Amino acid sequence: MSSEPQRFRLRVAYDGRPYDGWQSQAGGGAVQDFLLAALQRICPTVPTVQGSGRTDAGVSAEGQVAHFDAPGGWKMSAQEWQRALNANLPPTIRIMASETAAPDFHARFSAKGKRYRYRLATGEVLPPLQAGLAWHRRGLDPGNSFAEAVEAFAGKHDFRAFSANRGDGRDEERDTVRTIFAATVERQDDFVDVRIEGSGFLYKMVRFLVGTAVYRSEGRISLAEIEALLAGSSVDAKAPFCAPPDGLLLEEVFYPE
Amino acid sequence: MSSEPQRFRLRVAYDGRPYDGWQSQAGGGAVQDFLLAALQRICPTVPTVQGSGRTDAGVSAEGQVAHFDAPGGWKMSAQEWQRALNANLPPTIRIMASETAAPDFHARFSAKGKRYRYRLATGEVLPPLQAGLAWHRRGLDPGNSFAEAVEAFAGKHDFRAFSANRGDGRDEERDTVRTIFAATVERQDDFVDVRIEGSGFLYKMVRFLVGTAVYRSEGRISLAEIEALLAGSSVDAKAPFCAPPDGLLLEEVFYPE
Repeated sequence: MSSEPQRFRLRVAYDGRPYDGWQSQAGGGAVQDFLLAALQRICPTVPTVQGSGRTDAGVSAEGQVAHFDAPGGWKMSAQEWQRALNANLPPTIRIMASETAAPDFHARFSAKGKRYRYRLATGEVLPPLQAGLAWHRRGLDPGNSFAEAVEAFAGKHDFRAFSANRGDGRDEERDTVRTIFAATVERQDDFVDVRIEGSGFLYKMVRFLVGTAVYRSEGRISLAEIEALLAGSSVDAKAPFCAPPDGLLLEEVFYPE
Repeated sequence: MSSEPQRFRLRVAYDGRPYDGWQSQAGGGAVQDFLLAALQRICPTVPTVQGSGRTDAGVSAEGQVAHFDAPGGWKMSAQEWQRALNANLPPTIRIMASETAAPDFHARFSAKGKRYRYRLATGEVLPPLQAGLAWHRRGLDPGNSFAEAVEAFAGKHDFRAFSANRGDGRDEERDTVRTIFAATVERQDDFVDVRIEGSGFLYKMVRFLVGTAVYRSEGRISLAEIEALLAGSSVDAKAPFCAPPDGLLLEEVFYPE
């Protein structure tokens, strides 16, 4: 029986609507709180669970990644952990996959990038099953202006203007340069999905990007003004509009092989 | 100004999860209660709202149809009613369409048929955004046995064995012969959609049909036994299994031109 702890890596999906975001909250209403409670109900000495990063209240995830350590000698396989956790979690939080990980795997620090999806609904009425899962912008035109704005986000930029102050002075936010690998728009019927894949994201960055693209589609900001914001030339310049959390979903977190 | 009341026809969609079904309940938690309350907030003298039929607690709808009468001289167009109702309803109940109707249009008695969709999830884990919207049958094989059972439902049958007693002695349930126009199975990834379109449905009939097809896929009932149940030859024979409400959705109600 090994006395070394065993690290596990989880793929976590959740419906963000009933939760106070990912990050543990005093009230215990965050996804991380439910996950840690389920882990400790199974094994009381699991000290903590670490996610790849925060998601705000109301934001959903298909591919959040988290890791935790089971104490040495605790004989449960990755699949047994998955089943036991799903039996102890509400149905709106699910462990989609579970595997053993190397001791130096870290859900946050090993991550090489993430992909978010932001869903807009453009129809006359937001269908009830999409309530809280899409931002309803009746009549939004996801045509040229919108798509050009989204495409302009791709590349290495100083995204300072597209972030909110989290107010906790975290180091990562001091360097506001990020690389967006891909930024795409996909229309299907009355829904528009914006996907943004990048090396990392500032606080509320995807929501500021989507809000700005919506402003562009309405002619309220020019492409040149967006490009100036992306150049990060003015310390005080701010993106004009932050999209609500409703449409946002963390689709995937990327790690090196 | 006309003194005749004006009848309106609504297409109503709802997420069934938070509601006590369609039909008005003492506690006021049914979709019909919310709809009538919204109507009366706009126009206090709207006496009632009539749906095409009940849906059980937890059952959703894309195409429920309802009608109501606005008092003579009440000058609101169908589109104005739609907007005002959506402004007064929770986002999980939406008026998808609204039109004027003839005085003899009746959401229930004019209906010529309905189509329900029942969604099954066959994957290892039910994705959190599908919680309460699909029946999770891990590993269900929607292949030949399942599809044959569903196809056997098509046609004119005595569905007595596929109904539950509502316990209120409603006349419509005494004649248990119904015609199923189409019964189909569609698989997409880890989801299986059963669609059943018919002249009318007994209480819990779709859920008994789906439960029976699932039993067939597991070899727990033979096709011959299902055919015997559909022949209605034995008064006491009962379908073996009733699927939960989670996967059921009223997709469409049909009316004559």
